[in-house]
This record gives sequence, C-alpha cells and structure tokens, in this order.
Amino acid sequence: MAKHFYTPNEWFYIRNHLPAPDVSAEDYELDVAFDDGNEEITFNLSDLKTKFEKVEMTSSIQCGGNRRAEMNEIKPIKGLMWKGGAIGNAKWGGVRLFEILKDYNLTGIKHVQFEGYDEGSDGSPYGASIPIEKAMSGNVLLAYEMNDEILPRDHGYPIRVVATGIVGARNVKWFKRIVLSEEESHSHWQRSDYKGFNPSVDWSNVDFTKSPSVQNMPVTSVICWSKIDNGQLILNGYAWAGGGNRIIRIDLTTDKGENWFEGTLNEQTDDPEPKHFGWSLWSASVPISEQKEIEVWCKAVDSNYNSQPESFKNIWNLRGINSNAYHRIKVKSS
Amino acid sequence: MAKHFYTPNEWFYIRNHLPAPDVSAEDYELDVAFDDGNEEITFNLSDLKTKFEKVEMTSSIQCGGNRRAEMNEIKPIKGLMWKGGAIGNAKWGGVRLFEILKDYNLTGIKHVQFEGYDEGSDGSPYGASIPIEKAMSGNVLLAYEMNDEILPRDHGYPIRVVATGIVGARNVKWFKRIVLSEEESHSHWQRSDYKGFNPSVDWSNVDFTKSPSVQNMPVTSVICWSKIDNGQLILNGYAWAGGGNRIIRIDLTTDKGENWFEGTLNEQTDDPEPKHFGWSLWSASVPISEQKEIEVWCKAVDSNYNSQPESFKNIWNLRGINSNAYHRIKVKSS
Repeated sequence: MAKHFYTPNEWFYIRNHLPAPDVSAEDYELDVAFDDGNEEITFNLSDLKTKFEKVEMTSSIQCGGNRRAEMNEIKPIKGLMWKGGAIGNAKWGGVRLFEILKDYNLTGIKHVQFEGYDEGSDGSPYGASIPIEKAMSGNVLLAYEMNDEILPRDHGYPIRVVATGIVGARNVKWFKRIVLSEEESHSHWQRSDYKGFNPSVDWSNVDFTKSPSVQNMPVTSVICWSKIDNGQLILNGYAWAGGGNRIIRIDLTTDKGENWFEGTLNEQTDDPEPKHFGWSLWSASVPISEQKEIEVWCKAVDSNYNSQPESFKNIWNLRGINSNAYHRIKVKSS
Repeated sequence: MAKHFYTPNEWFYIRNHLPAPDVSAEDYELDVAFDDGNEEITFNLSDLKTKFEKVEMTSSIQCGGNRRAEMNEIKPIKGLMWKGGAIGNAKWGGVRLFEILKDYNLTGIKHVQFEGYDEGSDGSPYGASIPIEKAMSGNVLLAYEMNDEILPRDHGYPIRVVATGIVGARNVKWFKRIVLSEEESHSHWQRSDYKGFNPSVDWSNVDFTKSPSVQNMPVTSVICWSKIDNGQLILNGYAWAGGGNRIIRIDLTTDKGENWFEGTLNEQTDDPEPKHFGWSLWSASVPISEQKEIEVWCKAVDSNYNSQPESFKNIWNLRGINSNAYHRIKVKSS
C-alpha cells in the first residue's frame, strides 16, 4: 500500500455498488438539471475537456468500510471485509464542479445529487449527493485523468466525481447526471447505508433517518509493513484524514502506551489545510527489547488535533464504517 | 455552563496572558503592515465600524487548556487547572478580516500575525498568528460587539479577533496590529506554548520547533449537570468541535461502554459545516438500575465523524492542551 505516494492505477482499490458499465467517449453525456425539471443542460466529453480549465488535484479516496475487518472482530458486521486496502491516493485531472455550476441561480439549493451510468436490476442508477457548500468550494473535480493516464474503466471512465476528503461512496463513477436540489439523493446508499450510529444500535432498532449521511471522513492510520532489524522495529504505513485536514503526527507504542515514539512523515503534499486531501506516508524505527512477539499500535493526529479512538468497541456501528481506531499488529521476532 | 446557548458576557471565561490594558475608543488605532515595513495603514474605530459591512457570527471560543484538570490526574501538568469552564459561546458583531485584507497584494503571505495592546514587562505585546487561508476565508471577525453589547474590557474592548474554530490563544484581544508575513508570529505563545506532543515528550526533551502550533481544535464534550429522577439519570452539557465542524451525535454510557444511549442535541445554529462555529447544547435521560454510585461517560461525534479519544493517558501532553477525552463523572444516588 504505502510503497508509492501515488497509488498506481492498477493497484488502486475497486469498489462498485453496481456492475461497471461500458461508456464510450463518443456517446458520453453529462446532464445538469434542477429537480423541478427545469433548465436541463447537456455537456459532451469534448465540452468538459475544452470549455473549462483543466486542473489537477492530489486526493486520496477511501471506502467508508476501510478497516471494517478490524471492527468486525468485536462483533460481526455485514459488509465487505476490508483490511486497510480500501484506500488509494492519486493525482486527478479534470474540471472543477464549481466551474460547471457557478453560473446557475442556486438559491434554495442545498444538495448536489450525482447519478452514474451504472444501473441496478430495476434500472435505477447509482446515486449519491454532497452538500452545496462542498460542491461550490472548488475542491470537487469531474476527473478524466488519474495519475496522468486516461481514467480507467474500473474507476469511472470517462468521467468520475472526485469529492475530495469525502467518503468514496459519494465519488460517483461513470458520471451521468447532476441534479440540483433542496434534498439529498434519495438513493439507498445516501439514505440507508453510509451512516454512523452508536454501538447499541443494531438491525432491530436502527432508524436511518436519525443519522446524517457520511461525508468527510475521520483521521486514520495503518501500519503496512514491518521488519525487525538490529534491535529496532522498522515500520511504514499511511495516514489520512478527510475534510481537507493534514496529518501532523504519527505516534507508535510497543508497550500499550507506556512509551510513545514519533514516526517520520516522509511524503505529503504542501497543500495547506483545509485543502489538504492527499494521504501521508510515514516510517518509524522503534527500539525494542528481546521479545518473541511485539504488539505495536499506531495512531495519527490531524491538523484539527483530532486523534484516533483507542479501540473499536466504543465506535462499533452496524455498517462497520469509519473504522478508525488505533491500528494494532503483532510482529514476531523470527 | 450549559444553561444558555449564548453565554452571558459576565459568565464568559476570562483568560489573558498579560495584564488587561485600558484602551479608549478615541485613542484606538489598528495598524496593518507587511513585515518588510512597507505599506502601513491605520484604521481608527470609526473607520472599522463605518467603512465595512457589519456582520454577526455565532462562535464558541475555547481555551487551549480547557479540561486540563482531567488530564492532570494522569500526570501533573504546568498550567491553569481548568475543568470544563474555559469555553463560552457568543454572537459576535464586527467586520470580517477578509474585508480589511482583500485589496492587498498577498503574494507570498502565509501568515497573518496579530498583536494586542497588552504588553509584558519587557514592553513586547501579546502576539499570535493564523494561516492566510483562514484569514481570507471570511470566517475571522474583528469584533466590537459580544451578544449585542459593546465588547467588554475583559474580552478585548474595543476590538478583538474572533478566529472561529481556532484555539482561544489566537483570538487576540485589544487588537492593535496586523502584520502580513511569510512567517508565523514569533511570540512565545505561538512558537513555544500552544503545541501538541505525544505523552513521552516532557520538559527534558521537548523541541517546540517540531510541532505545528495549535489552530483548529478537536471535538470535545462535557456533562455540566446531572440528577437522578425516577430511575433515570438526567444529564445536560455542551459539545463542540473546532475547524467549522458541527456536532452530529452525543453518546452516553453508564456501564463502561456495554450499552450506549444517544443524547438529544437541543440547541445549535443552522450554520452548515465547515462553517459551523457555535457549540451544541444537549440533554439526555439514561435508564439506570439501583446503584449507590453511577459512573457516566459522554463522547461527541462531529461532522467529520471524528469522535473523542477514550482516555487521557494516550493523549497526555506536557502543556495539557486539547484535553478532549471522554468526560467521565460519578453521580451518587443520594
């Protein structure tokens, strides 16, 4: 995971909720509409590439369920059992959503709904939405390039939304339609899926109307690689926070918090918070005593000085999202 | 604390680093300068009140050391032993810093330094700085009103900075001077005080150059009042997150996390994140069994889905700042 600051396109995690469609560049159209049915405008791919300035942004995209497998150990959860691999970091090239929307009268518009070309068995498209404030921030891209290559089919060719700092589920692929609305998307994934609850809410008593849909994601970190070498535990990994926050510190302990060591942040962009959307790669060298097995914990701190919760028990939630407690691994000394 | 959504001015916490000066409206001047000595402009109080649009914003201000007393129980800390009272919430009226700065050429400017009329024994003023991105966001106010009253002397009469979502120490009172710079303020409080470290950093090995100055503050919550009534534990309190984040949930447990109950968010503004700067008042009614003493914990979740760390042990830091672990109190059943 943490070998490359920019995750190679072929290694970038793939998570689609519906079957990936084939969309040709020739047939591609993006519609923009108000949800009262008025003022529908259509752009073809050439319009998007030539009528608006091309910008590049570095942003990680993380699945809402990244690290769900660790939370699942506390109490079983429905969902894909991601370890720490449901995240990638890329340089995205495309046009700002702001540029598309800035000339509309947006009075009363609170949400920008997205629909994809991908459809469920009932013919309804994948859908999601983001708040109008985010849409107009300049930090949402309609991307046609990923790491200087044409956006691959698995990642939404020819156009996907890159809603920086926001859960993957709102970063709609095979982007077909914008609906400007007072309301959030009515899709299952917006209204009845990616939402958080306390650990005592289960499938018998959950009320999805009672919780806001996940947008920005909390601070997290993962140890990706470890080695014992000459009395030192050598580690590396990634850390990331949503909402445009930068990672400012990574802390490591091998004795359950009695002593802490600071890791080194090796790679991050210079983008200042609150517009820092890429992950940070880190490494550390922690002195260890003679032990058969070492348990190492890591936690990150972001530019709001938020840090990770210690354990999964008190953040457990029935969908297994925002699973961002300390990462704890055991390393055997050969 | 949590009786009034807008903290009455006479109840609002007072934390000054230097003696409060007497500044008269007639003599008041605000200077704006570049740190190369060029282009100094001076505004008097009437200029500030009449040449720029008056705006009102709701924002809490919290001392970096709020709740330090709880962290101090783990290991002693130097600093004022605040419980949960070093925070207040007000409606501030004044002029946006953005309006003052927008016509300057800010190329190369990275920090906006603030100086106060208050001076130390060596004659140097109180100082702090915020990043240029925050200064230009429209969310920093030069306030001359507090809850519809003239700003009181203890809170910076006639003008104070209200740097929304940012630690109190940057919200400079008796505001005298703006310096536009490539660098942060050189003040003690910016460079050698309000910064975070891991729990293994102490006064023998601390290097203040290694940590970024605190700006936005992390999510926190406090139980302000409790009563047992008819088999229920009745509670109320406040919760707040810096960085423009809204509180979305408050969780309570009386059995160390085996069962969680959701509190009710009774009062918060409609300001959407990331421009939500006021606190939230909450209340809860938690069923309890017959016990002599009940230990209740609370934690809040913000709109980035960050939650509080469980305990102070792993966030302990030598200055006792950002002390935002779960709030835990014991309630005796008479």
